[in-house]
Amino acid sequence: MFTVTVRDHLMIAHSLRGETFGPAQRLHGATYVVDVTFQRPELDGANLVVDMGLAARAVQGIVAALSYRNLDDDADFAGINTTTEFLAKVLADRLAARIDDGALGPGARGLTGLMVRLHESHIAWADYQRAL
Amino acid sequence: MFTVTVRDHLMIAHSLRGETFGPAQRLHGATYVVDVTFQRPELDGANLVVDMGLAARAVQGIVAALSYRNLDDDADFAGINTTTEFLAKVLADRLAARIDDGALGPGARGLTGLMVRLHESHIAWADYQRAL
Amino acid sequence: MFTVTVRDHLMIAHSLRGETFGPAQRLHGATYVVDVTFQRPELDGANLVVDMGLAARAVQGIVAALSYRNLDDDADFAGINTTTEFLAKVLADRLAARIDDGALGPGARGLTGLMVRLHESHIAWADYQRAL
Amino acid sequence: MFTVTVRDHLMIAHSLRGETFGPAQRLHGATYVVDVTFQRPELDGANLVVDMGLAARAVQGIVAALSYRNLDDDADFAGINTTTEFLAKVLADRLAARIDDGALGPGARGLTGLMVRLHESHIAWADYQRAL
Amino acid sequence: MFTVTVRDHLMIAHSLRGETFGPAQRLHGATYVVDVTFQRPELDGANLVVDMGLAARAVQGIVAALSYRNLDDDADFAGINTTTEFLAKVLADRLAARIDDGALGPGARGLTGLMVRLHESHIAWADYQRAL
Amino acid sequence: MFTVTVRDHLMIAHSLRGETFGPAQRLHGATYVVDVTFQRPELDGANLVVDMGLAARAVQGIVAALSYRNLDDDADFAGINTTTEFLAKVLADRLAARIDDGALGPGARGLTGLMVRLHESHIAWADYQRAL
Repeated sequence: MFTVTVRDHLMIAHSLRGETFGPAQRLHGATYVVDVTFQRPELDGANLVVDMGLAARAVQGIVAALSYRNLDDDADFAGINTTTEFLAKVLADRLAARIDDGALGPGARGLTGLMVRLHESHIAWADYQRAL
Repeated sequence: MFTVTVRDHLMIAHSLRGETFGPAQRLHGATYVVDVTFQRPELDGANLVVDMGLAARAVQGIVAALSYRNLDDDADFAGINTTTEFLAKVLADRLAARIDDGALGPGARGLTGLMVRLHESHIAWADYQRAL
Repeated sequence: MFTVTVRDHLMIAHSLRGETFGPAQRLHGATYVVDVTFQRPELDGANLVVDMGLAARAVQGIVAALSYRNLDDDADFAGINTTTEFLAKVLADRLAARIDDGALGPGARGLTGLMVRLHESHIAWADYQRAL
Repeated sequence: MFTVTVRDHLMIAHSLRGETFGPAQRLHGATYVVDVTFQRPELDGANLVVDMGLAARAVQGIVAALSYRNLDDDADFAGINTTTEFLAKVLADRLAARIDDGALGPGARGLTGLMVRLHESHIAWADYQRAL
Repeated sequence: MFTVTVRDHLMIAHSLRGETFGPAQRLHGATYVVDVTFQRPELDGANLVVDMGLAARAVQGIVAALSYRNLDDDADFAGINTTTEFLAKVLADRLAARIDDGALGPGARGLTGLMVRLHESHIAWADYQRAL
Repeated sequence: MFTVTVRDHLMIAHSLRGETFGPAQRLHGATYVVDVTFQRPELDGANLVVDMGLAARAVQGIVAALSYRNLDDDADFAGINTTTEFLAKVLADRLAARIDDGALGPGARGLTGLMVRLHESHIAWADYQRAL
């Protein structure tokens, strides 16, 4: 099994609801360092898991759509706790849709899995892993 | 599949028995940077894998019980080589017991797996992964 | 010359004013990984630059006062761009005041310099360095 | 399941063929930071996944055979795109052969899997994972 | 004193002349992770050391001019050993020229120093520091 | 001003005396990731700060002399608190003596400064800097 990972980042504001979250119930923010991993059982004809240029651009597009925003104001997340683990899934699902759309090239249809890791600090991170 | 990871560390002395270990047969020590990963197929009602506050405190408790000690003097490890891979299992099993005890809250019973990674230097680390 | 550094982090929301800031003019947020460096020409009687326990606690106190907040609502920063480099100075100056107050112990009066580094992502960070 | 990982690195020149690669079609080079992960369901009698000394030496041998070379001149790679993901497989397969040869000791025959991760920069890396 | 640092990277081929370099006399290559640090005694009116957008673009331009090339073929380096420390100076001097040209905005003329750090692997890096 | 840095590590046991040290008064241990920085105002004829092969070997020799030992049993440290900052100075001074002895080659006599950084965990490190 092969994987390739590219790193990007996004910076957002948000608040979380529920006593569990303690001071994170207040409006605050985070930098998420984003690692996107593409998985594939065999390499393509160019010896690649995925076209890195197209992959990096697609990741950047999905990251940019959330960057420098207050997620509390995003209609997509109305009434939803935008935890790190939840956001990992949002990014993975949006990227999976782009792959289906052909944004990563026809070869990317050979991908079998996707993982998104969001680092929220030097001591905490979350992953979401899904099939394609 | 979702995971969340928290990082902590511990500093111990120990020695290892067997020629395989070369100079590490002498009494020496290590800083272990400890990454604990909690796994769960679906998020809970708050969009969490685990209550991070409770999780971090439980990890800290387990780490503190070993920290700043000579493991050669610990009755739990009498006659046992406290290698990095072995200690990863010790930490994982102790944390699994705390989860069973309810220390991470009732929601933590939805966790399905646990991984402990111990970094012993910038060039070596060990993992132990188990089901819950 | 000796230094000791301790790492902590804080998570805040804020916005920045001026076209220079592009999309960062919108309300967003950041995780700052905070490295505080204490400087001293000679070690004290215990062979220390500073009492690490007291130092870590003082850093934590200063970090906690800003953590999980929207800096746009903080009266101390009214009309001020809370850039990364500016916040590094805020943390350093507040810590210098705590050192003057004796919060790091009488020995900390032997410190001659302080540096605060704020990492805002894996590709950008800022430092502020001052004498004591 | 247990794993142990050791880190090394290699520095090579190469070029890649195909428009996908853009400027990387020119002769250029890379530092690969190499993480080799050894997997085993149970520890051996010394509480080890693998004899770290032998493992590190075997990794070093395989890395040295490629280091400080232009891969375009290596007969083993004639007509082949030496992408990061492809090179991860080369290293893993060569190491698997050394394990079969007994270079990591008889105990290493208990290993069940191997992963090689090659970091080509701070923002991109590739893995290859195989059974033993 | 304030500094701001931005990170980028470049990948090149080259060879080094002289027995000191051992196997690095052969044509090989490197990824350099590039950290560029801008220094300034006081912040500007926007509370900045430098306009980060302009700075990142200028760094990218200087990095791109060397990226994906064989430095042995670059007329600028004919008969010159392109060691890591030497390349750090090349990047710093080229960036200093861009600052003089106004590429980082008129405010960048308040900068007093520049440092370039090139990481060639996880175990070696070089810096060059100069006044502006 | 130029610098070159090489990284190595050592693993030791020790205890610290004085209430300041809390639980670290007990026999415990540490991994120190060791960064040694060599400084020089101008490069030598080969465009080097220092012969990296000789430098790495000298660092390794100094590190090996302390590695896998209980520092409480080392006559050189009898009655001395082997804090991280103190050990940074020990390594720097020993390396300075090796440079004087010519172990890094005659060219190393052009070095003007030396810094040793010891990372004791992901959240704490200490530096010692000296002239040559």
